[in-house]
Amino acid sequence: MKLYSYYQSSASYRVRIALNLKNIAVDMAFVDLTKAEQKGAEYRSINPQQLVPALVLDDGQVLTQSLAIIQYLDENFSGPALLPIEPVARAKCRAYADMIAADIAPINNLKVRKFLVSDYGADEAGVKRWIQRFIVDGFTALEQAISASPLTGDYLIGNTPSMADCCLIPQVFNARRFEVDMGEYPTLSRIAATCEAHPAFVKAAPFNQPDAPKQAA
Amino acid sequence: MKLYSYYQSSASYRVRIALNLKNIAVDMAFVDLTKAEQKGAEYRSINPQQLVPALVLDDGQVLTQSLAIIQYLDENFSGPALLPIEPVARAKCRAYADMIAADIAPINNLKVRKFLVSDYGADEAGVKRWIQRFIVDGFTALEQAISASPLTGDYLIGNTPSMADCCLIPQVFNARRFEVDMGEYPTLSRIAATCEAHPAFVKAAPFNQPDAPKQAA
Repeated sequence: MKLYSYYQSSASYRVRIALNLKNIAVDMAFVDLTKAEQKGAEYRSINPQQLVPALVLDDGQVLTQSLAIIQYLDENFSGPALLPIEPVARAKCRAYADMIAADIAPINNLKVRKFLVSDYGADEAGVKRWIQRFIVDGFTALEQAISASPLTGDYLIGNTPSMADCCLIPQVFNARRFEVDMGEYPTLSRIAATCEAHPAFVKAAPFNQPDAPKQAA
Repeated sequence: MKLYSYYQSSASYRVRIALNLKNIAVDMAFVDLTKAEQKGAEYRSINPQQLVPALVLDDGQVLTQSLAIIQYLDENFSGPALLPIEPVARAKCRAYADMIAADIAPINNLKVRKFLVSDYGADEAGVKRWIQRFIVDGFTALEQAISASPLTGDYLIGNTPSMADCCLIPQVFNARRFEVDMGEYPTLSRIAATCEAHPAFVKAAPFNQPDAPKQAA
């Protein structure tokens, strides 16, 4: 299989974590969003939605959308389960994932931010305020949900990483990038620290990707 | 079970369709978003995210997020399957659902539109342009995906309604409400017409809900 990825894309980062948790090796291809490579004819033939990630299966079929890909991997490959089996825990895992992957990330997507600048006159501070607003909204609700849930453990659901944690960590990365005060979310911060010590998460991190710019030492 | 719903909420509408397709009867409770009832203490105790829908199970546990609820219903209740079993079709069903439920609907959500007005000075035309932009982006990509896919049938995936159709129809409702030209999307329009003739979709429609304002004859 081949994964089309961009180091700083949250949705790509989610799938990279899931692949590592399942111990699935894939070929990697890189789509530079800052050079608009996602809009080029070559990538559009793979994903007309012009978003990363895309996973090309060995028979050439293409899967898109990070949560659809993660659940495809979970249902068709061996390795640790990424969703709990118990029905309510399973529903909560999907709900936490969507509280981030549907209700925060798409609103803060690059194309939304660009439209806010081009058509609504937002300056850099305005864009940052936009990003912070929706992270704060989502993290406030998620912190409240998990701090009240008996299902919460070392990870968002229980004591093993799930699809929900695959969504959390890329969003925490963005929260720090845009200077959201993570001190407001003690339970999320505790779980993020646990994830960030796990090799599957470390290996998937943006600045550990081949397409990331070299960071100053 | 009890569903907290608002007639014009896309996410509530998705779950209403799914319940009807599965022939599952639930009690209904109504949350008037125009009166900010979702922000009141009573509803916040049910869903701290202050979004509809929420499904309260018979044991009092609360499920949130429309796609998590739909998959919970599909995996735990008899009746027609809402997701295909074949792995790639299943992944495509989830991907189409997220192309709408993650990549269109949240960006056009009421709280996003209000923020655009209050903090970025958008007027009514500006809000409409915003809504149209993200529906057009998403429907263009989805039309291209389904018109090229051998899996497309009477419905988005094959010849029975799935979770993807549960997402499509509420978004088509919004597209019409905000005057998006559906003529640009012939395959989506054909499938929408099929869905809209199906009793499960008719019964779930916004203006067939008890909390909808009476329409002029």
